[in-house]
Amino acid sequence: CHKNQDSLLSSASGYSKYRGILNWCVVMLVLSNARLFLENLLKYGILVDPIQVISLFLNDPYSWPAACLVIVANVFVLVALYTERQLSKGSFSERVGCLIHCVNMAVLITFPAAVVLLLPSVTPVGAASALSIYTILFLKLYSYKDVNLWCRELSTIKVKKLSRSLSCPSQQHFSGGDCKVSYPGNLTLRDMYYFVFAPTLCYELNFPRSPNIRMSFLLRRLCEMLFFTQLLVALTQQWMVPIIRSSMKPLEDMDMSRMAERLLRLAVPNHLLWLMFFYWFFHSSMNFTAELLRFGDRQFYNDWWNSETVTYFWQNWNIPVHKWCLRHFYKPLLRRGFSKIVSQSAVFFLSAFFHEYLVSVPLRMFRLWAFMGMIAQIPLAWFVGRFLRGNYGNAAVWISIIIGQPFAVLMYVHDYYVLHYSSGLNV
Amino acid sequence: CHKNQDSLLSSASGYSKYRGILNWCVVMLVLSNARLFLENLLKYGILVDPIQVISLFLNDPYSWPAACLVIVANVFVLVALYTERQLSKGSFSERVGCLIHCVNMAVLITFPAAVVLLLPSVTPVGAASALSIYTILFLKLYSYKDVNLWCRELSTIKVKKLSRSLSCPSQQHFSGGDCKVSYPGNLTLRDMYYFVFAPTLCYELNFPRSPNIRMSFLLRRLCEMLFFTQLLVALTQQWMVPIIRSSMKPLEDMDMSRMAERLLRLAVPNHLLWLMFFYWFFHSSMNFTAELLRFGDRQFYNDWWNSETVTYFWQNWNIPVHKWCLRHFYKPLLRRGFSKIVSQSAVFFLSAFFHEYLVSVPLRMFRLWAFMGMIAQIPLAWFVGRFLRGNYGNAAVWISIIIGQPFAVLMYVHDYYVLHYSSGLNV
Repeated sequence: CHKNQDSLLSSASGYSKYRGILNWCVVMLVLSNARLFLENLLKYGILVDPIQVISLFLNDPYSWPAACLVIVANVFVLVALYTERQLSKGSFSERVGCLIHCVNMAVLITFPAAVVLLLPSVTPVGAASALSIYTILFLKLYSYKDVNLWCRELSTIKVKKLSRSLSCPSQQHFSGGDCKVSYPGNLTLRDMYYFVFAPTLCYELNFPRSPNIRMSFLLRRLCEMLFFTQLLVALTQQWMVPIIRSSMKPLEDMDMSRMAERLLRLAVPNHLLWLMFFYWFFHSSMNFTAELLRFGDRQFYNDWWNSETVTYFWQNWNIPVHKWCLRHFYKPLLRRGFSKIVSQSAVFFLSAFFHEYLVSVPLRMFRLWAFMGMIAQIPLAWFVGRFLRGNYGNAAVWISIIIGQPFAVLMYVHDYYVLHYSSGLNV
Repeated sequence: CHKNQDSLLSSASGYSKYRGILNWCVVMLVLSNARLFLENLLKYGILVDPIQVISLFLNDPYSWPAACLVIVANVFVLVALYTERQLSKGSFSERVGCLIHCVNMAVLITFPAAVVLLLPSVTPVGAASALSIYTILFLKLYSYKDVNLWCRELSTIKVKKLSRSLSCPSQQHFSGGDCKVSYPGNLTLRDMYYFVFAPTLCYELNFPRSPNIRMSFLLRRLCEMLFFTQLLVALTQQWMVPIIRSSMKPLEDMDMSRMAERLLRLAVPNHLLWLMFFYWFFHSSMNFTAELLRFGDRQFYNDWWNSETVTYFWQNWNIPVHKWCLRHFYKPLLRRGFSKIVSQSAVFFLSAFFHEYLVSVPLRMFRLWAFMGMIAQIPLAWFVGRFLRGNYGNAAVWISIIIGQPFAVLMYVHDYYVLHYSSGLNV
């Protein structure tokens, strides 16, 4: 009847199946927020307004500057492809090719920023979307240039000292059935645009492909995308905006205790929205695109929710960017003789630059909060890695996400309001 | 760089490590309730009052009826031991022994109830504590009687058709080092009281023992016990009582929409208190007792949080009671030829009786809400088992726990207030 055994919750038991707790979370979050939602509704009425969303993207319904910017982006794609074609034929020397690529990518990153800063008709949300697309394109074209260079190096030097065989398969790798592409054969418009739309930032000559498009999977992801888009917009309008509005006064007065209360108040909806955004973007949207393109590698995120160090979180929550940084930035730095710690810091600096770029340019306001936020990850990572282990480390990572974000959001929103509506607030 | 793989959150990936989500829960619950707590504090001030807790147990500091009841309980233990001793010597026939046991246990269950109902100085909380101890003792003595009976049957019939060898080891099972007790040798005062204090309801002649008392483990459990006791009392006074107070008016007026709102409002603190109580009682207290008594079997609960059916929940959240029901009620019923479904329902009826006994007698009010709540588990179990699978079943079990309990609590509290303070409420 009895035998020697530990309780499941004792650390000695090694028990770790907590899938039920996940359901508990869902049930508790729904129930406890249902009441908050009712309270909010009774206090503010219905604030959800889909027309207002459109106005975030467009100032004037007859001019679509952000959409035009996105269309212009094709030019840079075509320039990159043309350059690679000439390089493969030997019409351009490596030096000229490299120069053209550098100019192309420098323009790619400065041109949209200049347009946004000079054209007042671009709305902040529209500008942020366009700049995100340009940033993604920048990373993709950088990878495209690198991989093609590696392929040429391999075929000219004829030495396989670098194990990039999977990225550049040589002829003997081909098996019977599947037709794989080898180096100059990949420089087609079709291959280029497949890479541009594929949910990855790292170019490969032969991406793994899934055998077919599963319609039910596609439909489920599509429903999720539509549902979460609605939910994100509705929750932002109904829940985030009233809290942000109500925290302008304490922020302007620098009333510390009330600021802390507003920060805690903002933390929950902000975090839930971020989680929804994560699921919407990294699970639903990326899987939808991948399924549509029969793109085989669906590892868009890893188990960052279990991360016990800040570094693990940044390495696992956004796998496409992480893979790119590793392959095209971190490892080349190591190969050039930089130390691990310098290379890691350099990655954080690059990331900080792009974070700042994506926030400051659309808001037309240079405050460096996003940059500082990313740079602050370096001492935070050191602190958590040094002093906290296991579940405590995990909790510290969660707290830094939950509290850090609304802090940055409040900072930017405060500065933006003070800049634009300062007189209105004083009334 | 890329390979064919599924996203972790896709159902196809089979991923199930969500330990980090547990930490997220803790962080989110702490942060989101910190604000609620501040709000509550600003609204009601500090309601926590340790003196008031004592008054829940005692009406008059010079008379301790509940404590006296607990001391009297020893009489029944000694009667049971005496009867078994006589039976083992053959001084009593089996028929006489059975009769004495039945009378002893009938008095054991009716005597405290009679005292509570007749003595107005017993407070509801004191009465509930005393009755719980008597109920536990009833189940223990029943098991004691059964196991000793099986041992006598085994030694007289000399046929081991029933595999109860572990409960009643015969001489040849004994290995060199550890001294095991065989049948009549167990009928000592020391063995009896070890069983009375051991955290189990099923008697065995030789309980598994842990090698030594780990002081750090003991201290950690003790700290948890003290901490959770404080927290339970404080949260009840600060959070539960104001909500219950404020829901009396809507309940009396039968205002459905406000009743639903109060129910949702009560559900969260009630559920958190129940979870804390679960951890405090089944993990901290029971492990503390077990460590102190070097009791080896620490399986006081199983992974009920993953339960996908109502039956699984009832079989796993309270293992001592479940083991008792299985060994001394369900299996004997099956052996007597009852069907599974009848035996299962009988277990629920027995459980419903004891739930009602532990609530109605201390409140001196027979309303059958607890009885109905337990009986309602039978159709609920059928419904969930029939229509809901996997995570949906799990969510249904959680909802039934989270919503069902405050419903029953509100019912009893309402009736109690109407009975005792009805005139005060109308003012």
